Amino acid sequence: MTGKLYGVGVGPGDPDLITRKAWRLIESASVIAYPILEDARSFARRIANDAVRSDAKVIKIKIPMSVERGPAQAAYDKGAADIADALRAGDDVIVLCEGDPFFYGSFMYLHARLKDEFEVEIVPGVSSVTACAAAAHLPLSARNEALTIIPGPVEGSLLRARIEAAEAVAVMKVGRHLEKIKQIVEDAGLLDAAWYVEYASLPEQVVMPLSEKTGDAPYFSMILISKGKDPWL
Amino acid sequence: MTGKLYGVGVGPGDPDLITRKAWRLIESASVIAYPILEDARSFARRIANDAVRSDAKVIKIKIPMSVERGPAQAAYDKGAADIADALRAGDDVIVLCEGDPFFYGSFMYLHARLKDEFEVEIVPGVSSVTACAAAAHLPLSARNEALTIIPGPVEGSLLRARIEAAEAVAVMKVGRHLEKIKQIVEDAGLLDAAWYVEYASLPEQVVMPLSEKTGDAPYFSMILISKGKDPWL
Repeated sequence: MTGKLYGVGVGPGDPDLITRKAWRLIESASVIAYPILEDARSFARRIANDAVRSDAKVIKIKIPMSVERGPAQAAYDKGAADIADALRAGDDVIVLCEGDPFFYGSFMYLHARLKDEFEVEIVPGVSSVTACAAAAHLPLSARNEALTIIPGPVEGSLLRARIEAAEAVAVMKVGRHLEKIKQIVEDAGLLDAAWYVEYASLPEQVVMPLSEKTGDAPYFSMILISKGKDPWL
Repeated sequence: MTGKLYGVGVGPGDPDLITRKAWRLIESASVIAYPILEDARSFARRIANDAVRSDAKVIKIKIPMSVERGPAQAAYDKGAADIADALRAGDDVIVLCEGDPFFYGSFMYLHARLKDEFEVEIVPGVSSVTACAAAAHLPLSARNEALTIIPGPVEGSLLRARIEAAEAVAVMKVGRHLEKIKQIVEDAGLLDAAWYVEYASLPEQVVMPLSEKTGDAPYFSMILISKGKDPWL
C-alpha cells in the first residue's frame, strides 16, 4: 500500500490554533517533513512540536539562501524524492506548513512534484492574516469590501499602486521592507489607519500603530490597513 | 466578576477544522451566541454543534432580511445588550463565527458595541478562502504575488476592474451572482484558470472548473483564479 501525502497547516504560531484534524494527523504520523532555510530552525516544527511523536522519522528539506531558481528547485526535487521514497514504502507523510499550506507556502512546490503519482490531501490552517487581525482587534473586511494581501518585498511603485487601489489591505512579510512600506502608507494618507503586528498569537506578539513602529521588523510581521467605514457599525 | 467576550472562528464547515482553542472554549461555555438570518438555522452553530454543552444558554441574534441599515443596526444593538447582560452577570460569552470572526463576519458589529466596556478576545479560525483552495488542490498565491479577495455582490464594472488588476483572485459569496462573475472572468480570458467550489470541507462539497458550472450557486460558494506562473514550480 502506497502512503498518502498530507499538506497540513499548523496555523500562525500558537499550538492551540492548530485545528483538531491537523493535530490528530501530526500525533499519528510516523513520517513528518518540512523545509528549513539552510540550517535555520523550522517555525512550523516549533508550532507543532508537542504533537510530533518522539519516534517519528523527519525529512528536512534544506532550502538554500539564493534568489536563483535553480538551487531552490533542486532542493524541492530532492525533498520530493525523499518523500516519494517514504510514500512508496507505505508510510503516510505529513508536511508541516506554517499558517496554511496553499497561502504563500512552499508546500505547493512539493505538491506540484508529487500530485500526479500520489494521493494528496490538503488540510487548511489559520492564516497569519486573520491571526494578526485578531491580535490587533481590527476587523479586516466587511460586507462588499475587497481585501488585498500583498507581500512586502514587492517593488515600491507596484506596492504603492496596489495599496492605493485597494480597500482593506494586509502587507505580509514586512521584514527589512518596513521603512519602504511605511513611507508608501504615509504618502497615501493612511498612516492613521495602519497597524503593525509581529508574531501574532505567540507570547512575543507585538501590536502597535504603524506610526509608532521604527527600526527592524522580523519576517513574521504584518501591516494591516482598514480604509472602510461600515454603515452597520 | 464581569465575564469575558470571545469571538470564536469555527472554520469553514468541517468540525475537525475547528482549532483546539476554539473547541475547548465552546465545550466549556455556559453561554453561547450567534446571529441568525430571520428564522434560518445558523451555519456556525451546525459546525460547532458537537462541542456545545446541552445546558448552554443560547443568545440568538435575529437579523432581519433588509438592505436598510436601521433594522440590522437595531438587531445588533439588541444582541449586544443581551450579551452585555450575561457578561455583567459574570458569564463568559462565546460568539460562534463562521470561518474567522474578522474576515467578512458579523462579529465586528458586536465587537464595536461591546469592546469599550468588556474584555474581548478574538480567536481566529480557518477561512473559507484557504479551505476552498485546499478542496480544489489549487495553490492560492506564492512568493510576491498579491491575492485579492472580492465579494461576489460587488457591482459588475468594479468587479471587472478588480479582477483584471489582480494577480491571484478569490471571489466569495457567489450565490446568485454566478453568471455575472463568470462572464467577467471569461471576458478577461481567465476562464481556463478559474475553479468553482461550494461548501468546502463539508460532505456536500463541490469542486469543478468554473467553465462547467451553470445555474444557481449557494451563498457558501467561491471562485478561485490563479493567474500566476511560479518560477520555482
